[in-house]
Amino acid sequence: MTISEKVKERIDWISQYSIDESGGLTRLLYSPEWKKTQELMRTEYESMGFVSQYDSVGNLYITLQGETDETIMIGSHIDTVKNGGSLDGQFGIVAGLITLEYLQTNFGKPKKSICVVSLAEEEGSRFPFTFWGSKNLVKSVDYKDVVNLVDENDITFESAITQAGFSPRAEDEDFLKNVSAFIEIHIEQGQILEQEKLQVGLVTDIVGQKRYRVEVLGQANHAGTTPMSYRKDALLASSKMISYVSELARELSKEMVATVGQLEVSPNSSNVIPGKVNFTIDVRHKDSQLLEEYDKQIQDLLKEVANQDKVEVSINQYMDGYPVPLDKNLLIKVEETCQKLDLSYKQMVSGAGHDAQILAPVIPTALIFVPSINGISHNPAEETKLEDLAIGNELLIELIKELSY
Amino acid sequence: MTISEKVKERIDWISQYSIDESGGLTRLLYSPEWKKTQELMRTEYESMGFVSQYDSVGNLYITLQGETDETIMIGSHIDTVKNGGSLDGQFGIVAGLITLEYLQTNFGKPKKSICVVSLAEEEGSRFPFTFWGSKNLVKSVDYKDVVNLVDENDITFESAITQAGFSPRAEDEDFLKNVSAFIEIHIEQGQILEQEKLQVGLVTDIVGQKRYRVEVLGQANHAGTTPMSYRKDALLASSKMISYVSELARELSKEMVATVGQLEVSPNSSNVIPGKVNFTIDVRHKDSQLLEEYDKQIQDLLKEVANQDKVEVSINQYMDGYPVPLDKNLLIKVEETCQKLDLSYKQMVSGAGHDAQILAPVIPTALIFVPSINGISHNPAEETKLEDLAIGNELLIELIKELSY
Repeated sequence: MTISEKVKERIDWISQYSIDESGGLTRLLYSPEWKKTQELMRTEYESMGFVSQYDSVGNLYITLQGETDETIMIGSHIDTVKNGGSLDGQFGIVAGLITLEYLQTNFGKPKKSICVVSLAEEEGSRFPFTFWGSKNLVKSVDYKDVVNLVDENDITFESAITQAGFSPRAEDEDFLKNVSAFIEIHIEQGQILEQEKLQVGLVTDIVGQKRYRVEVLGQANHAGTTPMSYRKDALLASSKMISYVSELARELSKEMVATVGQLEVSPNSSNVIPGKVNFTIDVRHKDSQLLEEYDKQIQDLLKEVANQDKVEVSINQYMDGYPVPLDKNLLIKVEETCQKLDLSYKQMVSGAGHDAQILAPVIPTALIFVPSINGISHNPAEETKLEDLAIGNELLIELIKELSY
Repeated sequence: MTISEKVKERIDWISQYSIDESGGLTRLLYSPEWKKTQELMRTEYESMGFVSQYDSVGNLYITLQGETDETIMIGSHIDTVKNGGSLDGQFGIVAGLITLEYLQTNFGKPKKSICVVSLAEEEGSRFPFTFWGSKNLVKSVDYKDVVNLVDENDITFESAITQAGFSPRAEDEDFLKNVSAFIEIHIEQGQILEQEKLQVGLVTDIVGQKRYRVEVLGQANHAGTTPMSYRKDALLASSKMISYVSELARELSKEMVATVGQLEVSPNSSNVIPGKVNFTIDVRHKDSQLLEEYDKQIQDLLKEVANQDKVEVSINQYMDGYPVPLDKNLLIKVEETCQKLDLSYKQMVSGAGHDAQILAPVIPTALIFVPSINGISHNPAEETKLEDLAIGNELLIELIKELSY
């Protein structure tokens, strides 16, 4: 079986318990589908002679034991968004498992151990908490942060973890003890590689992001009887603010992205001047100083518009995620491997969050992207050409071989 | 009783059957409250010696017979929006009835007859059809236009009119035959008189209005992984269009008003670039040529933005109401009466629709405004200072006296 055939076979295999009514993939943390999929991997790879083990919270570790305990870890997440696609998260696990099989079959026992971790959770799609899997691995979360969270069916986190057969992280547990490198491979979820006709993206940094909720208060009034000069039109003011959100990002850096994705108008009637508008701002960049500069300038610009348009504006920042640089030496190693395999690639920034950003502050970490067709993700239409998935998997195999043998 | 006390007493009296749970006024066409209120007026004013009569559709005419049949008609509408205020429509009827009483008591039989018409319907708040009362008076509506309309409880227009004891307009009916002038007095529903500290507004024209539905189609995409230069952001494009909607109106005429009152974003998620935006445009002015000019230029501007922002725009006009000029001679008469009474006033345009616009093409028509507190209307908080209502009523009395005695 070629790597390409193997990737297709393993994606179908790992998806089997989680295909939802629409043909998408839904596998929420600690759900029956989630548990069955972790167990499917555990039993299958134990039967092939790999060592497998859960930690307390349900991260699953499948290991090819080397001559030493020093470990190269490959990881990604097993959970999905609701009605997601078949690649986000699990492609990274599948590529890792294929790497284990291939290296064992073709090269036998490595010098360093190689471990694939199927992380319990990254998306935050069942409970309002993200990176539960990787944050337990690096011990940056307390059980009390999540124990009282409830899902949309009012099931508590505590009840969900217990029913799945898991428990809070044990005090003495340390699955990173011997790990010297963490590698994640993931679909890009963007269009840069496709547009630039490249096979691989080498992530240098994961962006920081700030998110804001903005409320603009004007005065609702009759659209026919209120002259333009008397108006306090919250939507007209907001539309000027939205233009600034975009212009400022373009001005500060060509790698900065800023988005107003959500907006509501009140009272939202065709013949009434809008009295209130609420909207969000999402801004991302790899450089935290530039994000601070954006923060300062956008607040000034929004207040300036409010002043000119005689409306009130309040700006509430509800997320402040710092940028995370990935490991430079590991990046050079991946780049050399690309050159060895004659792959087309570029260094790039990840505009989305990934497990790698939780590991990177603790362990030398690399993140590799393969192209996404039309950049579509979090959607059953999420797709990557099979040849691109295979190229990514071949790169991973070669890289891990270089690092471990 | 002073005019001021009388106005207060009659507003309370006419409101008695229609006060809704929130303390606002709800009196929908042909509802029990509507019928009881028409009957209240009919019996009360018959008992005072006035002649009263319904036409087929339920417009109620209360007349002070003069020496001749030539008639000066005072009219406004009896119906309200859902949860409306106590002045929109019925203040005009109350002021007319007080005028009848006052003139009969103090001056006896006039030369010309004076008739107050309580028009059945203007708002379109029960069935999706406006000006049912005045359009029957001028015979510009056919019963087949409304017979199959249904209200929100699925009651047909036919069933509603029959239950209220009325029927389609009779062929030979003509309640305008002897009418030589139509006068309407109404609250401004705007802030111009209040801001300019004026007692009365003399309406020269009722604006024409065009309304549009605009759809902007871009491409929904990940807010983190899609560089600014790859985006087709439907909301960013729409926000530029909204600025033009306002700028163009200001540029063409200081009396033009243009409003984007309703806007919806899809998918409306903080971390997704908007793929689709729908919004409305409402533009009004007294000059139809300027409205055509606006139409032409705004279509060009919207297409230009769409072109620059790589989105698609479709513009669908769903309303095209022509401006209506009111009678110039009658306006001069009202103006002279204001001067005689030493009232502060200005000539102005009405940005909202009124029964007067249906009468004006057929009969010399005048429309008089009194101030609205904060311009609030179609709301239980709708209010005018009692002294301003009384001043309007005194102006009406003097005007009708001049025209009829």
